[in-house]
Parts: sequence; C-alpha cells; structure tokens
Amino acid sequence: MTSTPIADLWPARPGGADARPEAAYRLLQAAVESFAERGFHATTTRDIATAAGMSPAALYIHYPSKAALLAEISRTGHAATLALVRAAAGGAGDAAARMRRLVEDFTVWHARGRTVGRVVNYELHALPEDDYAVVAALRLDIEREVTALIEEGVTGGLFVVQEVRTAARAVTSLGIDVSRWYTDRSSETPEELGRRYGELVLRMLGARL
Amino acid sequence: MTSTPIADLWPARPGGADARPEAAYRLLQAAVESFAERGFHATTTRDIATAAGMSPAALYIHYPSKAALLAEISRTGHAATLALVRAAAGGAGDAAARMRRLVEDFTVWHARGRTVGRVVNYELHALPEDDYAVVAALRLDIEREVTALIEEGVTGGLFVVQEVRTAARAVTSLGIDVSRWYTDRSSETPEELGRRYGELVLRMLGARL
Repeated sequence: MTSTPIADLWPARPGGADARPEAAYRLLQAAVESFAERGFHATTTRDIATAAGMSPAALYIHYPSKAALLAEISRTGHAATLALVRAAAGGAGDAAARMRRLVEDFTVWHARGRTVGRVVNYELHALPEDDYAVVAALRLDIEREVTALIEEGVTGGLFVVQEVRTAARAVTSLGIDVSRWYTDRSSETPEELGRRYGELVLRMLGARL
Repeated sequence: MTSTPIADLWPARPGGADARPEAAYRLLQAAVESFAERGFHATTTRDIATAAGMSPAALYIHYPSKAALLAEISRTGHAATLALVRAAAGGAGDAAARMRRLVEDFTVWHARGRTVGRVVNYELHALPEDDYAVVAALRLDIEREVTALIEEGVTGGLFVVQEVRTAARAVTSLGIDVSRWYTDRSSETPEELGRRYGELVLRMLGARL
C-alpha cells in the first residue's frame, strides 16, 4: 500500500475545465516528497525542479517560490480535510454515528495521505504570513466542526464529556498523529485503524457502546 | 511558562561526578533549538556552534558531527521518557490508577518538553543507523510498558479493550502529539491538560469512572 498520489488532493485533474498544467502537478508532487523527506528549509527550488524533471526556470513559470508551493499544498490539504470533516459531521444518523464516521474518515485520510499530512501539519511555521492566516482559519473550522458535534452529542445525552474543547483537541490530535507513525509496514490497514479509532473515540466521549 | 531547559534532561548536571563540560550542555541546547526550528537537514554545525557562542572547531572537541548531537539528544530524551513511564507503571495502586498517572506524567512531559519532543519524535529518520537501533529499542520498551499495563487492567476486569496494541498506540500517540500543538499560548497548563487526558484515556480504555 502506498501513500495517496498528490493529484487526488486536487479536485481539478489534468484535462478538467480548470485543470492546472500537468507540469504544475509534477511540481506539487515533487515538493511534497522533498518537504516530507528533508523538511522545507533544507529543500531548494532546484531540488524540486530536478525531482519533477524540469529546470528551475521552468518551475518559476508555475510558482514564484518554494513557499508558494508549500502554501498551495497546505491550503489544498487543509481544505480537503475540512471537506471530509463537514461531510461526516453533516451526514445521516445521530451524533454518535456521525462522530464514528468522522473519526474513521479522518484516520484513513491521515494514514493514506501521510506524506502530505506530514508537510501540512509540521511545516506550518514556514508558511508566509498571509497563507498562514488562511490555513489557520481552515484549522479553526475543522476544530469547530468537531466541537459542535461533541456538544450536540452531550446535549442529546449520547456523550458524557467534561471539557468539550479538550476532547475535540484529543479527537483531531489522534488522527493527525497517524501521519507521523503510520507506514507501509503498519499491521493495520487504514480502514481497520479507522474503525478501531472510531470505537476508541466514542468510548472516550462517554458513548454507550 | 517556557519549555524545559535541556539540562533537566541530563541526569548528570555540571558539577556532578560524571558531568559533561558546561560547553557540551550549551551545544546540546543550541542543537535542540536549531533542529526544532529549522529541521535537522537545514541546520549546520556552524549554526549550532554560533548559537552556543563557540567556533565550529570548538564544537568538534565535544561532538564529531551534528548527527552525534542529534543521537545524544534522542537517546537521552527517549531514556528519560521510558524512565517516567516505568515509574508510573510500576507505582502504587491498581492498573487504572497507574494508567492515570502514566498519562498525566507523559502529557506534562511532552507539553513542557515540547522543543525536545519535536526533535526526538520528528527527526528519527535522520539518526545514524546504530543510534536509530538504540532509540527504536527504547521506543519499543515504552510501547511494551503501556501494552502490559492495559493487559493487566483487562485481566483484572478494570478495562474493556478490544485491540490492546491499537489502544496502546492511541495512548502514546495522544501524548506525543502534545509536543506538536502545545504552545505558551495554550489555555491549559501542562498539569491541567495531563489530568484531562488521564480522564479521557481511562474512558477510552473502558474504565468505569
């Protein structure tokens, strides 16, 4: 099992109406792999261009800097995460069923998309200020969705939680950290891990199982 | 509230019987801060020496390379973590009381020692092979302690857990990820967070509270 191809993150694929040129996808993919392996600061635009089979000059046609590449990766990765959280939180069933789905999807996403996950979660400090503000707002929206779902469960008598914000933090933290430790050699598939984490989180929230 | 000074990690302080020279502590402190801020690969021995107020030549008297500094930080950080886990797991009380203490101490450690925590958890891939083997063994010992304590609780009827290894992973993962997100601006003190995480973990393990 390999990590998710970066192109899966971008809604418009090559050939779509507002698709990026294929070269831009190659650059994004090369940037994700380089940042994940060596860190943002130790990666040069030349490293990225070379990995994408281009010259540095060709890179600048698409992105003015490596920070611009990081910003697009981070914005897109966070937007996709928010979208899956919203889809699960707004789906069918009671708060417990929706929380289970949310944790399952969030876990699978971070296991399968661990290379992108490492970049978007561990290189936040390297984002230019304006891009950081956009990403911070997306992160806050994710936390708000999780918090609101826990509150709904508490109000409905499905969950028993003392500190809702701390519990929401624990739920997202468990999922994010999957991108740090999950590897091809992990004994569980992303889906198995997702189901087990869904179960553990529901217990943590005091749901009767 | 600031991050733990690095000297607190090393059992022999300056002046002790087998103490390192004060210059070595300054180098370790400078290396932790540089690695945490810019990543291992983007940090040069010159950066570390300069931050410690020394010449590169003076650094080499104490450490042959920046990898040797990383290795000492990682070994010592992991050994200290294992020591606190063993102390909690082997302490007084039933499995639930000891697990609560373990999670509290592990959480406080990663909140207060977050700068060291980021280096030892996110720069594992940069360790030389022999040092990696030592650190991997320490990490395995930490996981075994947590697993054994959960098994004891299950056997004693205090915990209800379906997959002990997944639950052990979740317990350590929650604590490790604290070093990623905890900051001086966090609304909870390390001790408050530790108590709340202790409560959440006991619920997750099916303990009756």
